[in-house]
Amino acid sequence: MYLCNPGIDVKGLTLLEISMRKSILGTLIAVAVMSISVATAQSDGTTTGNVVEIDVPAPALDGNLLDSSVVQEAAVYLPPGYDEDRDRRFPTIYLLHGIFDDHGVWVENFNVPEILDRLIADGKIPELIVVMPNGGNKYGGGFYRNSPVSGNWADYIADDLVSFIDENYRTLSDQESRAVVGHSMGGYGALNLAMNRPGIFSVVWALSPCCLAAVDDLSFGNDAWQRAAKIKGPEDLQQLIDSRDFYPIAALGLLAAFSPDVDAAPIYGKFPFDVVRGEIVIDDVQFDKYLDALPVRQVRHARKNLRSLRGLALDVGLGDQFLHIPAGTLEFSQRLGDERIPHLLDIYAGDHRQFIGERLETIVIPWVADRMRFETDD
Amino acid sequence: MYLCNPGIDVKGLTLLEISMRKSILGTLIAVAVMSISVATAQSDGTTTGNVVEIDVPAPALDGNLLDSSVVQEAAVYLPPGYDEDRDRRFPTIYLLHGIFDDHGVWVENFNVPEILDRLIADGKIPELIVVMPNGGNKYGGGFYRNSPVSGNWADYIADDLVSFIDENYRTLSDQESRAVVGHSMGGYGALNLAMNRPGIFSVVWALSPCCLAAVDDLSFGNDAWQRAAKIKGPEDLQQLIDSRDFYPIAALGLLAAFSPDVDAAPIYGKFPFDVVRGEIVIDDVQFDKYLDALPVRQVRHARKNLRSLRGLALDVGLGDQFLHIPAGTLEFSQRLGDERIPHLLDIYAGDHRQFIGERLETIVIPWVADRMRFETDD
Amino acid sequence: MYLCNPGIDVKGLTLLEISMRKSILGTLIAVAVMSISVATAQSDGTTTGNVVEIDVPAPALDGNLLDSSVVQEAAVYLPPGYDEDRDRRFPTIYLLHGIFDDHGVWVENFNVPEILDRLIADGKIPELIVVMPNGGNKYGGGFYRNSPVSGNWADYIADDLVSFIDENYRTLSDQESRAVVGHSMGGYGALNLAMNRPGIFSVVWALSPCCLAAVDDLSFGNDAWQRAAKIKGPEDLQQLIDSRDFYPIAALGLLAAFSPDVDAAPIYGKFPFDVVRGEIVIDDVQFDKYLDALPVRQVRHARKNLRSLRGLALDVGLGDQFLHIPAGTLEFSQRLGDERIPHLLDIYAGDHRQFIGERLETIVIPWVADRMRFETDD
Amino acid sequence: MYLCNPGIDVKGLTLLEISMRKSILGTLIAVAVMSISVATAQSDGTTTGNVVEIDVPAPALDGNLLDSSVVQEAAVYLPPGYDEDRDRRFPTIYLLHGIFDDHGVWVENFNVPEILDRLIADGKIPELIVVMPNGGNKYGGGFYRNSPVSGNWADYIADDLVSFIDENYRTLSDQESRAVVGHSMGGYGALNLAMNRPGIFSVVWALSPCCLAAVDDLSFGNDAWQRAAKIKGPEDLQQLIDSRDFYPIAALGLLAAFSPDVDAAPIYGKFPFDVVRGEIVIDDVQFDKYLDALPVRQVRHARKNLRSLRGLALDVGLGDQFLHIPAGTLEFSQRLGDERIPHLLDIYAGDHRQFIGERLETIVIPWVADRMRFETDD
Repeated sequence: MYLCNPGIDVKGLTLLEISMRKSILGTLIAVAVMSISVATAQSDGTTTGNVVEIDVPAPALDGNLLDSSVVQEAAVYLPPGYDEDRDRRFPTIYLLHGIFDDHGVWVENFNVPEILDRLIADGKIPELIVVMPNGGNKYGGGFYRNSPVSGNWADYIADDLVSFIDENYRTLSDQESRAVVGHSMGGYGALNLAMNRPGIFSVVWALSPCCLAAVDDLSFGNDAWQRAAKIKGPEDLQQLIDSRDFYPIAALGLLAAFSPDVDAAPIYGKFPFDVVRGEIVIDDVQFDKYLDALPVRQVRHARKNLRSLRGLALDVGLGDQFLHIPAGTLEFSQRLGDERIPHLLDIYAGDHRQFIGERLETIVIPWVADRMRFETDD
Repeated sequence: MYLCNPGIDVKGLTLLEISMRKSILGTLIAVAVMSISVATAQSDGTTTGNVVEIDVPAPALDGNLLDSSVVQEAAVYLPPGYDEDRDRRFPTIYLLHGIFDDHGVWVENFNVPEILDRLIADGKIPELIVVMPNGGNKYGGGFYRNSPVSGNWADYIADDLVSFIDENYRTLSDQESRAVVGHSMGGYGALNLAMNRPGIFSVVWALSPCCLAAVDDLSFGNDAWQRAAKIKGPEDLQQLIDSRDFYPIAALGLLAAFSPDVDAAPIYGKFPFDVVRGEIVIDDVQFDKYLDALPVRQVRHARKNLRSLRGLALDVGLGDQFLHIPAGTLEFSQRLGDERIPHLLDIYAGDHRQFIGERLETIVIPWVADRMRFETDD
Repeated sequence: MYLCNPGIDVKGLTLLEISMRKSILGTLIAVAVMSISVATAQSDGTTTGNVVEIDVPAPALDGNLLDSSVVQEAAVYLPPGYDEDRDRRFPTIYLLHGIFDDHGVWVENFNVPEILDRLIADGKIPELIVVMPNGGNKYGGGFYRNSPVSGNWADYIADDLVSFIDENYRTLSDQESRAVVGHSMGGYGALNLAMNRPGIFSVVWALSPCCLAAVDDLSFGNDAWQRAAKIKGPEDLQQLIDSRDFYPIAALGLLAAFSPDVDAAPIYGKFPFDVVRGEIVIDDVQFDKYLDALPVRQVRHARKNLRSLRGLALDVGLGDQFLHIPAGTLEFSQRLGDERIPHLLDIYAGDHRQFIGERLETIVIPWVADRMRFETDD
Repeated sequence: MYLCNPGIDVKGLTLLEISMRKSILGTLIAVAVMSISVATAQSDGTTTGNVVEIDVPAPALDGNLLDSSVVQEAAVYLPPGYDEDRDRRFPTIYLLHGIFDDHGVWVENFNVPEILDRLIADGKIPELIVVMPNGGNKYGGGFYRNSPVSGNWADYIADDLVSFIDENYRTLSDQESRAVVGHSMGGYGALNLAMNRPGIFSVVWALSPCCLAAVDDLSFGNDAWQRAAKIKGPEDLQQLIDSRDFYPIAALGLLAAFSPDVDAAPIYGKFPFDVVRGEIVIDDVQFDKYLDALPVRQVRHARKNLRSLRGLALDVGLGDQFLHIPAGTLEFSQRLGDERIPHLLDIYAGDHRQFIGERLETIVIPWVADRMRFETDD
């Protein structure tokens, strides 16, 4: 389903470039790098928004050890009315993509611009801006988290990107008018920003958020960890990355983000265990640090930040292929409840990706928009 | 806060009678017994539905030991279009009230007819019938549960009432077009019906459901249990009932519903503990039975029934005065997750009653209606 | 069972004084104030230890607002061999009693001196010193916890008392040779010292520990809290204390220890809720603080201290009259497991007090002694 | 596969045959097939017990589809006093070994005969018989569980073996004098027998019990399941078995025991999931059945059996290489607590095997023996 043809016109947008590659997940992903296109009158008389491809300075990533650029791509959806009234300001939703994806996934696979056009045309949401940043790197992604190895991706979003958007677009530049929605690794990222970077976003929705708890396929019971631990030199590392073998590479990404070690070339991560005669022996000190960084264990210290939100929601499909995701989502909800933090939990029948577009349209974006402050609040 | 004046016209309905009484909860509750009134054109040109007061045969309550009548009152909301097209059939939502309330609470306190009129007028829900049965008895309520002591209240709803409504009103008389929503004891009741009376309702919303788990104020750590256990004869019992002391009377209601004993006059309930020198000593056999009847322990055996629903939701205010309600709701959600049962959990800032009307209008009824089958599905 | 006759010779010790009083728990408690007695040859040729009554300076309690003396009583058991070899040093077990008890409970009710004599005579434990401090105050007890209201009872035990004992008796004055065992409030106290005063004790056993989690009878669902909250002036307070009504007074003790407020005369505690129209409304800020002070929420930050112990055990009877105690003990064990902290959990059939003496003899003291360092380790 | 060479004398016993090999677990395992040897006076004047190798008819395994013999080997330890007093009867402990082991592991690796000799000589336990049956099969083991595919291994132990032992040896043939202790798969087996075959054993200790909950390395997040699911024909199966690859073979063992399908040659198990495009898709019906068979979900229905035991204990090392074992043991303990079932939980620092022998000697066998009925009880 991730197929697309280079050169075709996608959703009425003029595409300058589409890069095709076999993704590490074994599916074709189209990354659209798009020029600004003007709002176009559709055959049914409605107009559509524009998607703008931008380059964003990312000083927060400076010095990262994974070769991530300090200028990052992003796509921005400007609503149909953006150009009509030059004095009007708009609330903004940030969309954070999953591991091994990039910001193109929202446009190409989940059809976000079309969804927004329809929701706005039908009066189901007010006009708003949607920002889709890149969060990928050579280990799959930086988890929108600060790390001396991967770079400070949380700061990139909360500081660099938000400032850039507020300076270059007519946004309502207060927390109450800013929301963040993420999928999978991006769901983790949205929650991480809500917990650890207060004051930026006021409404948060995590779609099938990964990595909330280290259980099942994310536990060290997954032998991908042992495969990752076998890497000795740069050649091994390159070979693994080239292999596009999901779990061992994701393990490197997790290490770089959650257990970084700037002195541990070539991986730059510290495994929270040793392998002795083919069996895992937990290292208590590192394991503590690693676990403590996971969201289910951060709810308590972040409870004030989380309680101050205007909206907080999680959802997950019970048939998610990544078994830790339903388990972690349920546990995260339970921890939120233990800390008396208002939230919505929506457990549905479905898998990791199949209903994301549909849910964005029918549930997520309307719910998020309904809780944001719009200019008419004034 | 539950004040009202006898004789006034409430919500444009002709009231034949309003009975005022000091409720056991220490608040004034108005019970409206209403005649049929025709749809009335409002000043803004919209029409309103009618609320009909009916008497429903209740053979399922035959032989109950708590003097509940085998004819039970209910109120029925008929939408504005009910009389316009005599061939049209409507889906039906059943509303189950809380302990020490009766069906009048929906009309008087939560303003359900006005809410429905507005939602229909604004096109937010299709036209539908809403049925509000009584579920109260001299111990506060029958918990919409079958019991040889309180009577078979689950069967009363699922068999007697549903049949009566389908025979006397133009309903869509299939499960897909029938929903149940309950508050507090009624939230318990809605879940109990979903788990134990499959095939009747397809969408279920439990608002601040009581009695899902026996913790906190519902645990035997609440000394109301010991006070209830001191009752020896009919005079003691009558004195307690007259005292309107909430918890000890509710304890009798729980016993009659969850631990009934037809031979144990005057209470007709078996305490799951003995009191020895002023201290509680658990009776394992009775305690097992009592706990097993509680919803958190029934999710597993009922998982097929629960999975087959078109919609299942729970909500609760974190400031609920009945402390077991947030705790039980969170635990119930967790058990649903453990059994891979899709559901929505909505944890909000608020108390046991303050936002019920508002939530019915903005969230609950639209969500429920959206998942029901309407004639246009055909 | 808490009866005893004044003037009788208890366990071969010369009693100077026994004070009898009706305890707040409705049972007779004998408080023995004992002189030093020499080891006495028994008819079977064995010798017995001595129990010494001592006064201990308690500067840690200086400035407390509950009229607790800065000189505290304690009883000390010296083993039969204490006087035989004047160069020998002994390990020391500290026993912490429950709320509304005092140190006499160990001697009078649980027969600790006889138990120790038997265990030593049978070679089941090496000779050791046992110290039984007082921990009671006018609110029932100080929970062996630091508080500006109740006084710094944790410091009293860990600093004042331990120093006094080590200076005045021939102890092995290192952590490895020091253990703490407590019952009920004292079980809480033992765990609190293990978590928050590292370096003092190396083996810990909590018998039926109270107050690990705020559930069931310890939740605000127990209406004793509302009764306590009704206290307005000193007369109300004195009347409650005189009433010997267990739960409301214990609530004051909990407040003074876990939610102290030096400005809130006459109670000097801050309730974590308000009472509005007879119903509890949680105060988030105070409630957070109150809950965070409870042990189940302290395991994580104390994990290093707890992991460093030579032995950690909890037990509880399933028929404990204080319902939160089994629940809290199970939850505490689960949290210990979550943090990978070695421990023993022993869940048995029994109530809050009936088997304490028997368990001390057959299980607890041998297990504790087995894990302590004795001189023979050198 | 557990072949041995005749002729080596191990621990004073005449061995007919011993085979040494690198086991699939990467450790050297010696399997002793032993003849009867008489009690031998040791240099220190003590005598030792005998270990007898026996063949036991196993009609309960008749018709199994995994080629397990209907005559099964076992080793029996007879205490030093067994031959001295021909009228004396002895209590009996059954030891159940782990997956990919056989009964020889107790003798060769955990030194059980020496341990028993020492404990008896030191008066720490009374004299007793210890029975060590085989529970292995070509998939690693039958989990001491009834299955139409693996055979009825629970019945083999509870019926065939116990009867055979009681008929051929001078046992105290009542439940009160019979105990069962198991390690890993055998720990599961001991709990399974306690829950589902009441009346046979009265004391139960599960050492590092496997398979209590399907989490971490035992969840479908372990890709061994996908490797097992790739088996199409008998050649694939044989190749996997020959590979000695632990997890995929164990997965077959789990399927045969917990999700058997007599029609599904060559594996004879039903996977509770499908693999679609390399990803797991849960099959709700099979998954329910599979999960329900796991011990954490059987505690509730088995609570009466479990409560009737004289002793029930679990232990686990926090450094267990099989990550689901600590997690499952903690969860099982919690479920026992929820059902008010007395038990001991001992969480220690250690791994899956390193302290088994030491724990058997210092903790497990004394604790078990202490709770069994001996002839002197009469």
